Amino acid sequence: MENYIHDIPTKVYFGKGMISHLDESLRQFGKNVLLAYGGGSIKKTGLYDEVMKILNEGGFTVTELSGIEPNPRIESVERGVQLCKENNIDVVLAVGGGSVIDCAKAVCSGFYYEGDDLWYMVKYVKGTKKSLPLVDILTLSATGSDFDNGGVISNLKTNEKLGSGFTFPAVSILDPTYTFSVSKYQTAAGSADIMSHIMEGYFSKTEDSELADGIAETILKSVIKNLPIALREPDNYSARANLMHAESVACSDIPEYGKLSTSWPCHGLEHELSAFYDITHGTGLAILTPRWMRFILKKDPSCQWRFVRFAKNVWGLEGEDEHELALRGIDALEQFFRDCEIPMSLSEVNIGTEHFEEMAEHVCQVRALDKAFVPLTKEDVIAIFTDCL
Amino acid sequence: MENYIHDIPTKVYFGKGMISHLDESLRQFGKNVLLAYGGGSIKKTGLYDEVMKILNEGGFTVTELSGIEPNPRIESVERGVQLCKENNIDVVLAVGGGSVIDCAKAVCSGFYYEGDDLWYMVKYVKGTKKSLPLVDILTLSATGSDFDNGGVISNLKTNEKLGSGFTFPAVSILDPTYTFSVSKYQTAAGSADIMSHIMEGYFSKTEDSELADGIAETILKSVIKNLPIALREPDNYSARANLMHAESVACSDIPEYGKLSTSWPCHGLEHELSAFYDITHGTGLAILTPRWMRFILKKDPSCQWRFVRFAKNVWGLEGEDEHELALRGIDALEQFFRDCEIPMSLSEVNIGTEHFEEMAEHVCQVRALDKAFVPLTKEDVIAIFTDCL
Repeated sequence: MENYIHDIPTKVYFGKGMISHLDESLRQFGKNVLLAYGGGSIKKTGLYDEVMKILNEGGFTVTELSGIEPNPRIESVERGVQLCKENNIDVVLAVGGGSVIDCAKAVCSGFYYEGDDLWYMVKYVKGTKKSLPLVDILTLSATGSDFDNGGVISNLKTNEKLGSGFTFPAVSILDPTYTFSVSKYQTAAGSADIMSHIMEGYFSKTEDSELADGIAETILKSVIKNLPIALREPDNYSARANLMHAESVACSDIPEYGKLSTSWPCHGLEHELSAFYDITHGTGLAILTPRWMRFILKKDPSCQWRFVRFAKNVWGLEGEDEHELALRGIDALEQFFRDCEIPMSLSEVNIGTEHFEEMAEHVCQVRALDKAFVPLTKEDVIAIFTDCL
Repeated sequence: MENYIHDIPTKVYFGKGMISHLDESLRQFGKNVLLAYGGGSIKKTGLYDEVMKILNEGGFTVTELSGIEPNPRIESVERGVQLCKENNIDVVLAVGGGSVIDCAKAVCSGFYYEGDDLWYMVKYVKGTKKSLPLVDILTLSATGSDFDNGGVISNLKTNEKLGSGFTFPAVSILDPTYTFSVSKYQTAAGSADIMSHIMEGYFSKTEDSELADGIAETILKSVIKNLPIALREPDNYSARANLMHAESVACSDIPEYGKLSTSWPCHGLEHELSAFYDITHGTGLAILTPRWMRFILKKDPSCQWRFVRFAKNVWGLEGEDEHELALRGIDALEQFFRDCEIPMSLSEVNIGTEHFEEMAEHVCQVRALDKAFVPLTKEDVIAIFTDCL
């Protein structure tokens, strides 16, 4: 078992009606609020009105940062920082999914960044020590940004999508009812993201970190059980709540405590796809993951034991032939994504071979793929992309 | 799934050599340290010297609170608060097991208590809003006091042992090698405490909080696997590390998030036993738990499903007859404790029937046993005690 440091200061209010804690959560920091949100779905669902009512009744002064993109762009971060400076913002309130929270984190961090170039902060400085406080209300179970300090920002000019460690939310309000209105497609893609956060760390060489592996398997089984229910019955509270509980822990590092780090290769590869093609992150992960699995199992058969465990403990499969069992576990994952109607090839999301070389080159520069569960070279990355066509 | 609030600000340094973070952990709060410890085992193991070297080299001023009892007493808390006031203490450093950390928590809280009577604070005020910062170095995997805000203090004058919510440690240093020297008996009793922290919440009416139940089952299975290894090979790092990882999460509420609360009945009953007889907490819990299980299963057969799940998922048992399966799970637990050489009857720890009435009366006053998984009356408590003779 490896050493780990646990350091997550976020307070979480989980469950129906927990928005009742919004006023107190903001008030501790001040009266001037930057309200950050996306393309307006919170206006359709009524959550915007609910939030504004609480803010108005509480006497808060609200500045809005709206229109944050699904893959949030550096321009939105720049706009947010400027708004915070112009309006003496005390606290940022992000209402939305992971993209909105990621962008808000970069704004909180960027407020105290002393340089001029916020993209330089994202790419090289990787956040700041001091940041504005952040409160969020989550509306999509996917990224886990509500319970970690990470954020992923895109720069379409340079075709880059990069993660940094900005700041933990001070408070996250997780009410599963806010995800009732999420479309089937986004529910499925978000769940693929949750599962990927787990699988990236689960496939590690460490054999004896039992709590971490148990949490990982539990989360995978919970998503496998609850996602189909949420797709059939969007208002099923129990299914939505279990997905939200899973997502908040999945990206927190907790399912990897005591394990050798893996450098999260599928996330590296996927960030290339969405930096170049602006596709849905979870979809990219769903396409990549089973192909990455088959590739590394072939490249390094000594990692087979971990796939056997995955097949048995996650998918409940049994069998004498361990190699066959390992492959059946991967097939089960791919079939699950298909059954949830996620596009399962690059061609289905209009991606061809044109940038494979460039993307593979870039991911090997920005991510330590030599430290992965099974190390990957540039040629390996191109081979995996090709398997996804 | 029920609502929950997650609010654990503690930073954890887990693993071999993590004492290297001690200086920085204390320094952020100041230079005047109250060093709290127990009966001197840390002097035998060399940990006391290691800590003093770091404190001396760091230029800290050290005041000692030594001799904290295994069931820490209110007099030690009083002595600690007085030392803090006399020596302008900035931060308390607890080095030891749960008893030392519990006492230190009460001292941190008691420092800011405005009344004269610290027992009144423990019994009625249940802690204070403000407290001195606490750093701990854990030397026994048992209570989970390193990752919660609770502490249990005894008053031998009134035969009371009561829990309160004092303060979370700011920093906990969990190095499994510090538990290599723990005796077989204390290792086993400590593990019984870990398992009890899980079982108290696991036996709940809530069926759909999947992550919580998965974490609970994982921790139980990990203890069942690793305790016998640690008993055979006290220096087995992996076994000691898994026990320590389990203990820090087991009492944190995390394994109960989303579940109906249960009022932790066995802890209520055990606190009576150790308040009257000063026995080892984990031993009391090991004696009580299987008897409590058989009693409630008989009293309310509608709770059988949960025992069947326990038998299958924790003990790997199978069978057609669900009632038989439920009972076999309980038998497996009792046999496990016996195999680990924990005394499994009250008579073995010199407890007779003389205070049953009084203890049952008291526990019904101080604990909401009517809110337990299966509600318990005073007569039920006496019956369970009697089954333990």
